[in-house]
Amino acid sequence: MDGRQPPSRPAHDGSAYHLEKPAYNARLTEVGRFTPMGELLRRYWHPVGMARDAGATPRTVRILGEDLILFRDGSGRPGLVYPRCCHRGTTLYYGKVEDRGIRCCYHGWLFDVEGRCLEQPCEPEGGRQRDRVRQPWYPVQERYGLIFAYMGPPERRPVLPRFECLEVLEAGEHVEADDSSIGSGGIVIAPCNWLQHFENVVDPYHVPILHGSFSGAQFVEQMAVMPKAKFEYGPRGIKSTQLRALPDGRALRRITEAVLPTLRVVPSPRVGRYGRVESIGWTVPIDDTHYRIYVAGRVRAAGELAQMKSRYNGKTWAELTPEEHQRFPGDVEAQTGQGPITFHSEEHLVSSDQGVSMLRVLLQKQLDIVAAGGDPVGVAFNDADACVTFDAGQYLE
Amino acid sequence: MDGRQPPSRPAHDGSAYHLEKPAYNARLTEVGRFTPMGELLRRYWHPVGMARDAGATPRTVRILGEDLILFRDGSGRPGLVYPRCCHRGTTLYYGKVEDRGIRCCYHGWLFDVEGRCLEQPCEPEGGRQRDRVRQPWYPVQERYGLIFAYMGPPERRPVLPRFECLEVLEAGEHVEADDSSIGSGGIVIAPCNWLQHFENVVDPYHVPILHGSFSGAQFVEQMAVMPKAKFEYGPRGIKSTQLRALPDGRALRRITEAVLPTLRVVPSPRVGRYGRVESIGWTVPIDDTHYRIYVAGRVRAAGELAQMKSRYNGKTWAELTPEEHQRFPGDVEAQTGQGPITFHSEEHLVSSDQGVSMLRVLLQKQLDIVAAGGDPVGVAFNDADACVTFDAGQYLE
Amino acid sequence: MDGRQPPSRPAHDGSAYHLEKPAYNARLTEVGRFTPMGELLRRYWHPVGMARDAGATPRTVRILGEDLILFRDGSGRPGLVYPRCCHRGTTLYYGKVEDRGIRCCYHGWLFDVEGRCLEQPCEPEGGRQRDRVRQPWYPVQERYGLIFAYMGPPERRPVLPRFECLEVLEAGEHVEADDSSIGSGGIVIAPCNWLQHFENVVDPYHVPILHGSFSGAQFVEQMAVMPKAKFEYGPRGIKSTQLRALPDGRALRRITEAVLPTLRVVPSPRVGRYGRVESIGWTVPIDDTHYRIYVAGRVRAAGELAQMKSRYNGKTWAELTPEEHQRFPGDVEAQTGQGPITFHSEEHLVSSDQGVSMLRVLLQKQLDIVAAGGDPVGVAFNDADACVTFDAGQYLE
Repeated sequence: MDGRQPPSRPAHDGSAYHLEKPAYNARLTEVGRFTPMGELLRRYWHPVGMARDAGATPRTVRILGEDLILFRDGSGRPGLVYPRCCHRGTTLYYGKVEDRGIRCCYHGWLFDVEGRCLEQPCEPEGGRQRDRVRQPWYPVQERYGLIFAYMGPPERRPVLPRFECLEVLEAGEHVEADDSSIGSGGIVIAPCNWLQHFENVVDPYHVPILHGSFSGAQFVEQMAVMPKAKFEYGPRGIKSTQLRALPDGRALRRITEAVLPTLRVVPSPRVGRYGRVESIGWTVPIDDTHYRIYVAGRVRAAGELAQMKSRYNGKTWAELTPEEHQRFPGDVEAQTGQGPITFHSEEHLVSSDQGVSMLRVLLQKQLDIVAAGGDPVGVAFNDADACVTFDAGQYLE
Repeated sequence: MDGRQPPSRPAHDGSAYHLEKPAYNARLTEVGRFTPMGELLRRYWHPVGMARDAGATPRTVRILGEDLILFRDGSGRPGLVYPRCCHRGTTLYYGKVEDRGIRCCYHGWLFDVEGRCLEQPCEPEGGRQRDRVRQPWYPVQERYGLIFAYMGPPERRPVLPRFECLEVLEAGEHVEADDSSIGSGGIVIAPCNWLQHFENVVDPYHVPILHGSFSGAQFVEQMAVMPKAKFEYGPRGIKSTQLRALPDGRALRRITEAVLPTLRVVPSPRVGRYGRVESIGWTVPIDDTHYRIYVAGRVRAAGELAQMKSRYNGKTWAELTPEEHQRFPGDVEAQTGQGPITFHSEEHLVSSDQGVSMLRVLLQKQLDIVAAGGDPVGVAFNDADACVTFDAGQYLE
Repeated sequence: MDGRQPPSRPAHDGSAYHLEKPAYNARLTEVGRFTPMGELLRRYWHPVGMARDAGATPRTVRILGEDLILFRDGSGRPGLVYPRCCHRGTTLYYGKVEDRGIRCCYHGWLFDVEGRCLEQPCEPEGGRQRDRVRQPWYPVQERYGLIFAYMGPPERRPVLPRFECLEVLEAGEHVEADDSSIGSGGIVIAPCNWLQHFENVVDPYHVPILHGSFSGAQFVEQMAVMPKAKFEYGPRGIKSTQLRALPDGRALRRITEAVLPTLRVVPSPRVGRYGRVESIGWTVPIDDTHYRIYVAGRVRAAGELAQMKSRYNGKTWAELTPEEHQRFPGDVEAQTGQGPITFHSEEHLVSSDQGVSMLRVLLQKQLDIVAAGGDPVGVAFNDADACVTFDAGQYLE
C-alpha cells in the first residue's frame, strides 16, 4: 500500500468530526421580553419573592430576564417597579421607602406602588407636571406567603389562582412557603434553563436510574423500582401516573403533574405520606439560563418543607465536594449538565421520553394561541374559575 | 362574567410591560477611537497619570479606551507609547527603560519617547533599516504634578493650557495633584460613563437631596439648602450660579463650571474657604464605562486635597458595608446606579435639569464643529491664548 | 500667530492617532471546527492527555476548541467522546465508567469507547432501537505515555507516527512523558494562541536577548551568544541551524526543528548533553487563545524532563511575584504579551524573522493543499512511512 494513500475506511463511523453546529429551540426556552415564550409566560402570575422579601429596604429581583425592585410601602402595600428612575435612570435600589412609596436618592422623586409620581422636590411647587411621568411597575399580590407578580399586558391580566391543595387544610396544618428551590436537587439558583427542570417533572423514568441505582438511593427504596408510566393531557398541563410493584405485592400509584405556566405538582419522593399532593412548586425562570423554585405546601410544623431536600451519600448537596458531585450526581448535575440551554438539535428522544414530548407539544400549542391573540390554558378572569384542583398524589394499592 | 373573558382594563396603565427597548446616546458618551466624542475629546490634552507614575518601570495606562505604556527615560523625558512593539507585538510593559528610551524584551528593539527605533540588535549592523519603523506614540507634557497627553491629530495639537487658579498662588500656597478621584463621591475608578459624572457638575439641585436630606449631611449644613440656580454658556463650558439663603439672613453665592473637555471647576462643598475656586478636576474617561478624576489644586499643606473627600455616616466611602452603601447613597451610587452607560431613551428631563440639557447642547455643537473640520471651544494654538480663567468660587453676601 | 490657527506640524509624525484597526490572520491561528487551520490540524494525531489521565473517573479535555470526555473502560481501552449524551444532552462527565464503556447518569444509556449504545435501561427490552443512535467519539491510541487522538475525517486517518528519537534508546534510558508545558517558559496553560509559541521555535535570535542579556542568563552562558542562523525547509517542517562561537575557540552547532502539526524539536537549552535531540514537544492548541505543551523524551531517571524548566532570578516561573515577572520576562511574558492572538497587521518582520516567515509560508501551503482535497506534509498511511527522524541536536565542533 502506498503510504500516501489512506486506507479504505467508512467516511462516517459516528466520529464527532461530523457533528453539525448545535442549536437550541429558542421558542421553547427563551423568556425575555419580546420572545414567544416570554410572552406566553407573561400571561400568568409568577412568584417573585417571599412575602417577607417585600419590606422597607428595596430589594433586587430578577425574573424572566427583567431586573426589578421589590419593596413594601409604609401602609403595607408591596410594590414591584422598574429599577431605573424614570427621571434620570438612577436605580431605586438606593431609594428610600416611605409611607406613600419609594423615593429616588438622586433628585428625590417619590413614586407609589403603582408608579405614580407623588413628589418632585427639585421642581417648582413639587412638580406641577409630575402626572406626565410614571415609573414603570407591575401589579403584585400576596398569597401563601409569596409575592406574585403579573408582568403581561394589563388588559389580559387574569385572576391570581387559588389551589385546592393549599386551600383545604386538615386539622393542624398550615401553609408554608419556601424559596430554596426544593425539588431542584439541592441548588438554590440553578444555572440552566428553566425548561430543563420543568421537563424533568414529566420524566418519571429517570428516577430509578439517577436517583436509584446510579448514585445510591437518593430518595427512598420504593422510588428505585422502574415504574410503568402513563401520560395524559389534563386541563392545565401533563399528568403522569406511575405504578411501581412493591416487594410486598402491593403497588405504589404515584401521580405527578406539570402544569402551566411552570408548576411542578409532585408528591414528596421521600414518600412520607400517602394521599393528595402536599405541596406545589413554581419553576420560575430568572432569565434564559437560571431558574429558582418557590414552593408552597401544607405542613404541620414550620420548616417541614425544607426537610424534603435530597441527601447524597448522607450529605446535603451543598456539602458535597467536587469529587462527590461527580460520583453522586442528582438532578442538579443532570440538568445543569445539559448546559445553560440544552441543544435540542442533538437530542434523540425515545419512547420513554413521551412526557417530555407531550409537554413540548402543549407549550408549542400555547405559543400559537398567544401569537394568534388568544388566552393560553389555565388563565381565568373571575374568581369562580380560578381555583385549581390536582389529581397528583401517591397511593398504596 | 365569563371567566375566559378578561375584565375591561386600560391597555396602558404605566405597566413595565410596555417599556420599549432602551438605548443610550452613543454620540455623546462613547470615547473610543473612530467615534464622534472620541474625536472631540482627542482635540484636547488630558491627564494620564501623576508625574511620579512616569518612571523607570513601564506602567500601563488606559485612557479613552486605549491601552498605553507610560515611562520616563534616563534623561528624564516622559514617554507614552502604544504597548505592542511594532516588530512582533510583544507588550512594552515588559520592556526595559534605558537612558535613551524603552527596549522590548523579545528581540531588544530600542525606542525613544517619540517612537523612533534606535537599535535592532538581532539585525545586521543593529538594523540598517530601523528608520523604516516607528513605535506609535503620543506627545506628553508635565504640569501641575500631572502628565498630560495629546492623543489627537498631530496637525491640530493645541497648546497645553494654563489655569489662573493654579498659576496665581497666595503666600504659603503650592499646587498639589491627586489621582484618587476627589469629587467622585469616594470611588477611585468609577464603573460608569464619564458623562454621568460630568453632567452631575451642572446639576446643583441634587445636592440638598442626595447630599443633604437623603443620606444625612454629607457635606456641610449650608449645602442642604435648596438653591436658586442660574445657568449660562461661558467661553469654554457651562457656568452655574447658585444662591442659598442662610439662616443668619446672609446668602451663599456659589459658582460652579463644567468646562470642556472634562473639567469640573467646583469649589469645595465642605465650604472651608470663601473666594475663587481652589482646585480643578479632570473627569478622564478610561473607556466607555469607566472614568477617573485627576485633581490639581492650591494647598497650604501636602495632602490637603485628599481631605476634601466625602464622609458618609462618619465613614469614608471605602469603609462602608454594602448595607451602608444602600442606606447612605452618594454620588457614586447615584451615578453608577444609572448603569454603565445610562439609557437616555428612558429619561424625562424637567426644568431643574436645565444645566444637563445645556451641557448636552454644547457638546453636540462641538461634535458638529469637529465633524465639519473645525476646532472645538477652548483649544488654543499659542501660549497667549492658553491661560484659562474661571468665575467659579463661593462667596458670602 | 492667531491662537485659533494651529501651528504647521507634520500630519504624520508616527502618532498612535493614525493606527488602523488591528487584525490577526485567522487562517493561520484559529483552530476550531470548520476553520481552515482547524481542518489542517485535524489531519494529524494530537496528544490529549497523559496515559494515566484515561481512567475510571471521566475527565474533561479541551483541545482544538472542543470539549471532550476522556475515560478508560474496565477492559483497559481508552475512550474519548463528545460530552453531551446523544439522548438528552447531559454531560458524560457525570457518567459511570463500567467494564464495557461509560453510562450516562440521567437515563442510564451505556456507550462503548467507539460510541456504540449498548443499553437503554428506561426503554422496553433495554432499547430495541439503540443501534439507531451513536455517541460522537474520536479514535485514540496510547504511545510514549500519552493518549493521542485523531479528530479529523475518518477516511483520512493517518497512522500514528513513531519518532526515532523516542524509539532508539541508549542503555539505561527510557521514555518519559510530561504535561506541564516544558519549554513554555514556565506556565502550564498559556493564555495565547499556539502559533505564538510555535513560531518562537524557529526564532533563535531572541534567545540571547530575552533569555540572555535581558533578564539575566535564563539558560546557560553559551546561549547568551548571538548565533549565526540558517533556515531550511525539511520534509515535515522548518529546520534551523545555529552556530555560536564559544570563548574557547570552539563552536556550538545547534539544530532545532518546527515540525507539523505542532512539534517543537529542540535540544535542551540547558545544554546538558551533546548529540541528537532528547525530547520532543507538542504545542497543543486547547482553543484559539490557549495552548499546552506535551513532551516525551528519553531520560535516565524518572522526573528528569521536569528539570528542564527555566529559572528566573533563581526562582521557578510560578514563584515569581508580579514585579519579578515584569523585571525578568521570559517566553511566557513575551508570547502572552503579544495578546490572546497577536495582531499580524501591525507586525514589521525583518531579516532575522526569516524562520517565522518560512513557517508561515509552509503552513499556508498546507492549508491550500487541504482545501484542494490533498493530504498535508507528514501524514502517512502505513507503518513503514510513519517513523520520523530528526536532524535536531547540539554538537561541539
